[in-house]
Amino acid sequence: MSSESSSDHNCLGWAARDASGTLSPYQFSRRAVGSDDISIKITHCGVCYADIIWTRNYIGDSKYPVVPGHEIAGIVKEVGDNVQNFKVGDHIGVGTIVNSCRACEYCSDDLESYCAKGAVFTFNGIDADGTVTKGGYSSYIVVHQRYCIKIPVNYPLSSAAPLLCAGITVYSPMMRHKMNQPGKSLGVIGLGGLGHMAVKFGKAFGLNVTVFSTSISKKEKALNLLGADKFVISSDQEQMKNLAKSFDFIIDTASGDHPFDPYMALLKTAGILVLVGFPREVKFSPANLNPDMRTISGSVTGGMKETQEMVDFCAACDVHPTIEIIPIQYANEAHERLAKRDVKYRFVIDIEKSLE
Amino acid sequence: MSSESSSDHNCLGWAARDASGTLSPYQFSRRAVGSDDISIKITHCGVCYADIIWTRNYIGDSKYPVVPGHEIAGIVKEVGDNVQNFKVGDHIGVGTIVNSCRACEYCSDDLESYCAKGAVFTFNGIDADGTVTKGGYSSYIVVHQRYCIKIPVNYPLSSAAPLLCAGITVYSPMMRHKMNQPGKSLGVIGLGGLGHMAVKFGKAFGLNVTVFSTSISKKEKALNLLGADKFVISSDQEQMKNLAKSFDFIIDTASGDHPFDPYMALLKTAGILVLVGFPREVKFSPANLNPDMRTISGSVTGGMKETQEMVDFCAACDVHPTIEIIPIQYANEAHERLAKRDVKYRFVIDIEKSLE
Repeated sequence: MSSESSSDHNCLGWAARDASGTLSPYQFSRRAVGSDDISIKITHCGVCYADIIWTRNYIGDSKYPVVPGHEIAGIVKEVGDNVQNFKVGDHIGVGTIVNSCRACEYCSDDLESYCAKGAVFTFNGIDADGTVTKGGYSSYIVVHQRYCIKIPVNYPLSSAAPLLCAGITVYSPMMRHKMNQPGKSLGVIGLGGLGHMAVKFGKAFGLNVTVFSTSISKKEKALNLLGADKFVISSDQEQMKNLAKSFDFIIDTASGDHPFDPYMALLKTAGILVLVGFPREVKFSPANLNPDMRTISGSVTGGMKETQEMVDFCAACDVHPTIEIIPIQYANEAHERLAKRDVKYRFVIDIEKSLE
Repeated sequence: MSSESSSDHNCLGWAARDASGTLSPYQFSRRAVGSDDISIKITHCGVCYADIIWTRNYIGDSKYPVVPGHEIAGIVKEVGDNVQNFKVGDHIGVGTIVNSCRACEYCSDDLESYCAKGAVFTFNGIDADGTVTKGGYSSYIVVHQRYCIKIPVNYPLSSAAPLLCAGITVYSPMMRHKMNQPGKSLGVIGLGGLGHMAVKFGKAFGLNVTVFSTSISKKEKALNLLGADKFVISSDQEQMKNLAKSFDFIIDTASGDHPFDPYMALLKTAGILVLVGFPREVKFSPANLNPDMRTISGSVTGGMKETQEMVDFCAACDVHPTIEIIPIQYANEAHERLAKRDVKYRFVIDIEKSLE
């Protein structure tokens, strides 16, 4: 079984101890490697807004100390007896969940994150053994093989990390709603971690991609760095009016409060708006829904099989998130900047080089 | 071509002359029968809430005199030279539209009611020749063959009338969202003309159907007359809570303002709420959309091909709207009662027997 006992306190991490969210070094234990487990030396971890939500206790259910991080990439350092698909040295990733019941209709249907008994989140979750899960701002992690993703050896581990939450969160509804149809039109609202991946997937799928933003400052990068076809300031009513009924799809990644009617009106007949952001409410007129049989649909993350498919797609088609690599010592400042949306487009912590 | 000139004023109808909406007898002309036209002796016309909207000028675009009625059933009395599929004496129906461009992507895709150039509504619409269309509260109507539906001879014309708006308005989204899967669960909000048809189609599809209503007075008829499996008072929070995450589909036919969160919470993962009613706004929390990848989708009526399919389905599977047959002289009172929702479940005017 395991070469490490569960009381070694040999896992180094950074944790928040209270609702200030301030991260500082923290040593703790991981469970021993069970027969279906994989122990992973973490090399990189993406910084997701969820890290801020739970380190700062925005929802009120934070279980301190909170070790955040659910965009984990690394290298297999040990495998349990039953593990066949991974071996020591493989590149590997872990996303937003580390456990589920593995028996319900959703788990059986490769939709583990929608598990009827509740999937176990990678950090601040309560695992089957009653312990509180601890995330990827740490030196290693032990995870059941079902929740591990193979990272192709030609794909950088630093790039792989943000795929495991930001990437799959937009890829999953894009596939579910058949957005991979070259020539169709996609609007992307918001240009953060999720939005910039929606643009990249959209271009990889051959879509005509328009970015909607409240700030002209994002124009140059949206067009030249991310490759969007068009950039529209959403407050420009004339331009918005000219785009009425012109989009097959819109992906709304904005979590700030914003009106929906102006965007719903941009959808063609039978057009679909997918909401992956979390504003306080969704409000629109039936006049922008019924007469054109439009649809608004929500989504969060995706199942393990689809996550693997997405990673393989990114490696095969050269889709890479645009990242800023930082040391763990910069994590608090990174959280501050992310809270102010001052990031282009995903921070990735170089755990391997900076966590000691 | 035609046996009747267009200046005969030989069509008898009932029209509203102003926003009072009061209907009274009115004589007018129909166009001559063109080569693709069918002249229809109207025997029955259903009373739809749309009749009230335009006779009373609720939207502000009423073109008086307004002859309402877009649930028309009758008998072919004359056909143009190009008409092959209908012959004199056939039973025939006309629904909410009587023209469209017949060339755009939507018309080509059998979605005439979503015509890119705008479908022509059966009454208070502006036809290709610039005239204002006049509906089914009248002795006969001349319609291009494309917008005519065959009524099987074994299906009562009085029952066929409400299918052509109320019926297709729920049938179309039910088919689009694959609700014809025996054993799945359907909730129906509101029990008027549309809602009661949703219950009947639901049962015909083998669904487990629950009716949601604000009024206990509807319980007995919902269960015993319409055949619903369950009846729930939507204000009963305990019962609503127990039904959380238990519905595959909900059809919302309520046009009065109502909350959406309590119903969205009833949908299973990937569940779909179809809105066919027209409340003033749709408002809900993303917490009831995203985490369970739920969908809300709008719809209005359906194309001609699907309308024909629906009528054939009703004839084959013995699905009949529950109607109250009235003489045209009762039309004003019927409108009053419909405005107060005092109808079980559709008024149908016996044009043939009462319009003289």
